[in-house]
Amino acid sequence: MTDCLGDGEGAKTPMELYEELTAQGDQVRALKTAKAEKTEIEAAVQLLIKLKVDYKQVAGQDYKAGCPPSENSVAPDNGPAASGGDDEDTVDPWNVSTTNAKGVDYDKLIVRFGSSKIDKELVDRIEKVAGQRPHHFLRRGIFFSHRDMHQVLDAYEKQKSFYLYTGRGPSSESMHVGHLIPFIFTKWLQDVFDIPLVIQLTDDEKYLWKDLTLEDCHHFAVENAKDIIACGFDVNKTFIFSDLDYMGASPEFYRNVVKIQKHVTFNQVKGIFGFTDSDCIGKISFPAIQAAPSFSNSFPQIFGSRKDIQCLIPCAIDQDPYFRMTRDVAPRIGYPKPALLHSTFFPALQGAQTKMSASDANSSIFLTDTPKQIKNKINKHAFSGGKDTVEEHRQDGGNPDVDVSFMYLTFFLEDDEQLEKIRQDYASGALLTGELKKILIETLQPMIAQHQERRKQVTDETVKQFMTPRRLNFHF
Amino acid sequence: MTDCLGDGEGAKTPMELYEELTAQGDQVRALKTAKAEKTEIEAAVQLLIKLKVDYKQVAGQDYKAGCPPSENSVAPDNGPAASGGDDEDTVDPWNVSTTNAKGVDYDKLIVRFGSSKIDKELVDRIEKVAGQRPHHFLRRGIFFSHRDMHQVLDAYEKQKSFYLYTGRGPSSESMHVGHLIPFIFTKWLQDVFDIPLVIQLTDDEKYLWKDLTLEDCHHFAVENAKDIIACGFDVNKTFIFSDLDYMGASPEFYRNVVKIQKHVTFNQVKGIFGFTDSDCIGKISFPAIQAAPSFSNSFPQIFGSRKDIQCLIPCAIDQDPYFRMTRDVAPRIGYPKPALLHSTFFPALQGAQTKMSASDANSSIFLTDTPKQIKNKINKHAFSGGKDTVEEHRQDGGNPDVDVSFMYLTFFLEDDEQLEKIRQDYASGALLTGELKKILIETLQPMIAQHQERRKQVTDETVKQFMTPRRLNFHF
Repeated sequence: MTDCLGDGEGAKTPMELYEELTAQGDQVRALKTAKAEKTEIEAAVQLLIKLKVDYKQVAGQDYKAGCPPSENSVAPDNGPAASGGDDEDTVDPWNVSTTNAKGVDYDKLIVRFGSSKIDKELVDRIEKVAGQRPHHFLRRGIFFSHRDMHQVLDAYEKQKSFYLYTGRGPSSESMHVGHLIPFIFTKWLQDVFDIPLVIQLTDDEKYLWKDLTLEDCHHFAVENAKDIIACGFDVNKTFIFSDLDYMGASPEFYRNVVKIQKHVTFNQVKGIFGFTDSDCIGKISFPAIQAAPSFSNSFPQIFGSRKDIQCLIPCAIDQDPYFRMTRDVAPRIGYPKPALLHSTFFPALQGAQTKMSASDANSSIFLTDTPKQIKNKINKHAFSGGKDTVEEHRQDGGNPDVDVSFMYLTFFLEDDEQLEKIRQDYASGALLTGELKKILIETLQPMIAQHQERRKQVTDETVKQFMTPRRLNFHF
Repeated sequence: MTDCLGDGEGAKTPMELYEELTAQGDQVRALKTAKAEKTEIEAAVQLLIKLKVDYKQVAGQDYKAGCPPSENSVAPDNGPAASGGDDEDTVDPWNVSTTNAKGVDYDKLIVRFGSSKIDKELVDRIEKVAGQRPHHFLRRGIFFSHRDMHQVLDAYEKQKSFYLYTGRGPSSESMHVGHLIPFIFTKWLQDVFDIPLVIQLTDDEKYLWKDLTLEDCHHFAVENAKDIIACGFDVNKTFIFSDLDYMGASPEFYRNVVKIQKHVTFNQVKGIFGFTDSDCIGKISFPAIQAAPSFSNSFPQIFGSRKDIQCLIPCAIDQDPYFRMTRDVAPRIGYPKPALLHSTFFPALQGAQTKMSASDANSSIFLTDTPKQIKNKINKHAFSGGKDTVEEHRQDGGNPDVDVSFMYLTFFLEDDEQLEKIRQDYASGALLTGELKKILIETLQPMIAQHQERRKQVTDETVKQFMTPRRLNFHF
């Protein structure tokens, strides 16, 4: 362990104490199993108790087996493996679920993950620094949580630039509209701040987790890259990479992966991601690969040898466990911690209780859907907050908070006033469910058609350009 | 687990059953800890018992937690984590020790590891196929154990070629004479069979295991490459690579690493290598990186897209755990199993109980030692099998079996008759310890001096040539 952590500081961190405690607990159990001398067991138990007292002092919380301390010791647990409470939403990179029709309780999630809320003050500040009206994803709380965004803005005001990093796990050829959220927002950030962007396609991850071949996963990465490019990214400012390609093309990237892998133990990934002893060693070491692009010297072609350029990661909140781990490791290997902007989840057509699934064609609107398919899916599957009969609806009004069509409009209808009027009319009963669905259909049909038009123009040559490691139009 | 194994066959392998059993044991413990319903616990225990019966039937041995079944189910255990017996030698990639002054009991090791002895029949067959007198490492049992060597020779007789793979963990600039053993023998094999050779320098492994920087480890890799090249390898037939470089230069190599990582669980590496939950995730996934060069399509520049070219690995027996794992994975990812030739350990000057340490300058003769240092070290430190006084020695004779100088001569004195005469004279008392040491000194001094002379001629340009991924003088 010393070999793997060893940050050279005197006082022990909560994580170091946590690991000592876990090891000592194992030791006590081993002694008991081995029916060791009573005095030996007692000595081991005494040390265990002492460590628990130390831990509470340093971490500000009781030791709980399997729940490592959160990054800044404010949260009572640290993600999926630790979600003990009965009413708690499940949120990790592979599962999102809640029993609440309005969706996940994001305020609770902020407390649990130990991140900060994107409040009005921060939105106003982004407006001031960027000199542009904030994106409606910010105005409407779709990006609702952050880590260190004020620090990024402080530095930017002092002419210290940063870069953006986001990504996607390519598990099929087709992407749905929800997958566009981080890319739409990232493009806005890039346009506003004029900074480099790296986009990771984790085809290796999909191979490790799914019953797919390497060739499939790599093919999906390239196909997904076309949809991402169709969002309008500038080839002179954006590098898109498949892990399967880039790992084998950049010794600097692999060096960072190994550095991270040396500083994270199995106990830690077990606590953060809920891995078990039956998981393959590829899954166990993968988090380091998603962490590595957070450090600028993973991309020497863009940043030269600079390792101090701050990274800002816009992503859905379910990816936060990876970056909590990354932020824990960063100072121990001499790199700045990445900052984060977290989005809410895009709801399935069937309701906000779950995230959409790329494998269920009816759970969302896909970027390949025809106008007719869009219309049919919304009319047939979009969960309605309306009443059972027109009479009841006219009298009592619908509930926009659980209505999926209304939720989709908060993502894709840019006009704030129009959206507010729809909300009021639906709540009052003036607007019927069928009419609300029609507005959504008429919003999505041209949006998807335009996307398909742009995607058609993305040639293999264009993809190759985006995916070739090269210098971008920035000087570092 | 299914995701990670899943070889698609009907009947379960011992390893699959072992993993199910381990998981079921965890389940029972979890239910008990959670104070679950009695009926639920009983059902889980019943399943556990059934699995144990199945396991014994398939694996031919009782289930023992922490001890996965050996590759072919002949050995009662599977390496370090399982070496329970009190009198057993410890042999794994990081520790070799025995209480016997003659060294490790290699016959026992063959049974424990489930490999095959290199008997006279095999040595004779190698002579016949190669058309050359067998190397004295073969004649004298220094390479004493193998896996599938007959299969390699069968194929070779049918004009089906193979390739050689060996390696070194570069933990310091200096190598000692013992480090030359696999390279001397590999060069002989290459000359005799005229086949390609790949040499892996695991600088990433050394970074993960030792308190060294990445830069140090990579520097050691390049320095060690010079000593390896000085053994006389042909640049047109040999590719030497540092993991830190080659991983970032070959997408095909990384693809094989990920394939292997998907098919090995933490339970398996825990059983094979003795890893614990406190080990970093880099160590846990590293075995896949040492496994990957066993498959020919890791080197497309040499073998094109061919994935069916058999690999033969000459190495010290302590590296066998890596390749037991590799051989277990190979058929599940559609590759041939590598064959192996195992050597004994080169003893420390202080005696055959331990392997030498590159960090203790007095534990061996280093390739940088001067003639004077060689003389002093041997005279001062080489453990003697002689008697306390000249009179006693003359009367009772010495014991060549525990005498380190004599052991070194079995490695480096090529003349069989001369060696046998020394053995007899020493045993009879005709040859004194000082005289024996003198013979060794006079054998090693010119050998090391010639090595130093050849190493001086290895330029940075030569190293670069050897370490550049390129086509070799073979057609595949």
